[in-house]
Amino acid sequence: MNPSQKTGQMEMAQPAWTVGGACHHRGMMMDSTFLPAAPLAEAEREGLYRAILTRRDTRGEFLPDDVPDEIVSRILVAAHHAPSVGFMQPWSFVIVRNPEVRRRVHDAFVTAHAEAALMFPEDKRDFYSALKLEGIMEAPLNICVTCDRNRAGPVVIGRTHIRTMDMFSSVCAVQNLWLAARAEGLGVGWVSIFDNATVQAALNIPKGIVPIAYLCVGKVKGYHRRPELEAAGWRPRLPLDELLHFDQWDGPEPEEALTRLVREDQRSVNQGTFVGALAQSLRQ
Amino acid sequence: MNPSQKTGQMEMAQPAWTVGGACHHRGMMMDSTFLPAAPLAEAEREGLYRAILTRRDTRGEFLPDDVPDEIVSRILVAAHHAPSVGFMQPWSFVIVRNPEVRRRVHDAFVTAHAEAALMFPEDKRDFYSALKLEGIMEAPLNICVTCDRNRAGPVVIGRTHIRTMDMFSSVCAVQNLWLAARAEGLGVGWVSIFDNATVQAALNIPKGIVPIAYLCVGKVKGYHRRPELEAAGWRPRLPLDELLHFDQWDGPEPEEALTRLVREDQRSVNQGTFVGALAQSLRQ
Repeated sequence: MNPSQKTGQMEMAQPAWTVGGACHHRGMMMDSTFLPAAPLAEAEREGLYRAILTRRDTRGEFLPDDVPDEIVSRILVAAHHAPSVGFMQPWSFVIVRNPEVRRRVHDAFVTAHAEAALMFPEDKRDFYSALKLEGIMEAPLNICVTCDRNRAGPVVIGRTHIRTMDMFSSVCAVQNLWLAARAEGLGVGWVSIFDNATVQAALNIPKGIVPIAYLCVGKVKGYHRRPELEAAGWRPRLPLDELLHFDQWDGPEPEEALTRLVREDQRSVNQGTFVGALAQSLRQ
Repeated sequence: MNPSQKTGQMEMAQPAWTVGGACHHRGMMMDSTFLPAAPLAEAEREGLYRAILTRRDTRGEFLPDDVPDEIVSRILVAAHHAPSVGFMQPWSFVIVRNPEVRRRVHDAFVTAHAEAALMFPEDKRDFYSALKLEGIMEAPLNICVTCDRNRAGPVVIGRTHIRTMDMFSSVCAVQNLWLAARAEGLGVGWVSIFDNATVQAALNIPKGIVPIAYLCVGKVKGYHRRPELEAAGWRPRLPLDELLHFDQWDGPEPEEALTRLVREDQRSVNQGTFVGALAQSLRQ
C-alpha cells in the first residue's frame, strides 16, 4: 500500500494560521499545525521530476512575446517560498524591462565575455567565443534576484558560523523561480559573465545588497533535449554513481543496491523514460 | 522579427542524444533537438507548486524508519540535474549513516550552537536556545552536498568573473533534492550551525572541496503548515509586493497590475488555496 493512501488522519476545526505565537519546538508542537507526511499524488510527483529534468538554461531561444503578469506573479511567489536561513527571506527582485538599463548590463557582459575568452587555452577560445551565452536584450523580461545581507539584523539564526548562508537562500529562490518558469512553459537563462559591481551600478542596487542572479526570462521556441554544453561535446554528464561517497569521502565500499539504482535511474533519464517509469513503479 | 525565430530549419532522422560533437549555438541548432515549449499539464504544474509551498525545514519530526533506496536514488537524480555553471556539475554526495561520524558532526553543532546563543541579545537567548534546530542523530540518513572547485579545471564557462557560481550550482542541487524529497513524502533539514572545517574533517573531505550543505533526511510525522520561525512569531513572512523593484532599485512606480496579482497570490498561499486557484484558472 502506498503511504499516500493512508493520509489525512486528523480533522481540524481551525486553519493552522490562526495558531500563532507559541514556540513550536519539540514537546510543544501541536499536531493540528501539521500537514500529513504523504508523498504527492502520482501526476504531481511526475510534474516535479519533469520540471527538474527538462529545465534548461535558455540563451538563444527567446521569443519576443509578452509574458502574462499572472505567470510572472506565480514564479515570483515560487521564489518567495524558498527556504531561507533564520526565515530571513533576504531576496528582492528587480524586474527589468527598460531597454536602456538592459543595454548597460549587456555592455558589461560584452566586456567580460571578451576578457573571459582570453582566459581559455588557445585551442578552446574560438569554441567559447562562438557560444550564445545570454539573451539579455532578446528576452522580454530580466529579473535580478538579490540578497540583502542586513535584512534580519546582524545575528541570524543559522548564519552565525557560515556567513554565506544568506546568499545560498537567495540561490534557492532562483532555483524555485526557474522550476516554476519551466512548469509554466517559460525559459530562464542565468547570466554570470560580467563584473557584479557594474550590474550593481546599472540597477542602482545599494551597498550591502548583493546581486545574486541576473536572469533572462521569456517564452521560448523550445527546450534543448540536453544541456547545450553537453550536446556540443564540451563536457559530458558525469556518472552520478561515481559522485557518491559513503560515511566519509574515503569511506567504505559503495552501497551496492543504491549504486545500482542510481545507475538505472540515470539510464532511464538519458533515455527519456524516467518519468514514465516512475509512474509505473508508483502504481505497483 | 526576433533572430531566434530564424534558426533551426533542419529535419533530423536520429534522436537528439545520438547527435554529438556539433556546436549548437545560434545558426547551427536543429529543431529536432528541442522539446516543445509547452507548460506542464495542469496536475503536474500543481505538483511543482505544491512541493514548493509545503516544503519545510525538518528538525524535530523525523521518524526512525528506513528510507527506501528507490527514493534515495530519485532524490539524488533530482539533485544531479540541477543547473551548473559551465556544465561543471561540481557536486558530490556523502551519504552518512554511520552513527560515529554523525556524532562528530553533532558535537560540532553542539559547540557552535552554544557559541551562537551568546551572539544574540540577552532577551532573545532563551528563545534561541530552546529551538530544535537539527535532527542529525534522529534522521536515518544524512547527506552532505559538496562543491569541488577544481572539477572542470581552472577556467570554467560562466565562472570567470563571479567565482562563487560553482558553489551556487551546488546550492541549486540542494534545492532540487529538497523539493524531490518533499514530493516523495520525506523531510529534509539543512544544518548550518557548525564550523565548516570541523565537518570537513569529520567526513575526511579533501582540501579544494567545500561542504555546501549538511542535510538530515528521513520520513517525518508531518510538515509544519507554516515555517516554524514564522509560527513562533520570530519573523513574519515578508510582503512579497514590497520586495519588488522595477527597472532599478529606486526605479519608477511599481507596476500596478503585477503588484496586485502578487498580493492576491500571496493571500491565496496564506489561505491554502493557491494550488486549487491555479487549477481553476488553467481550466478557464
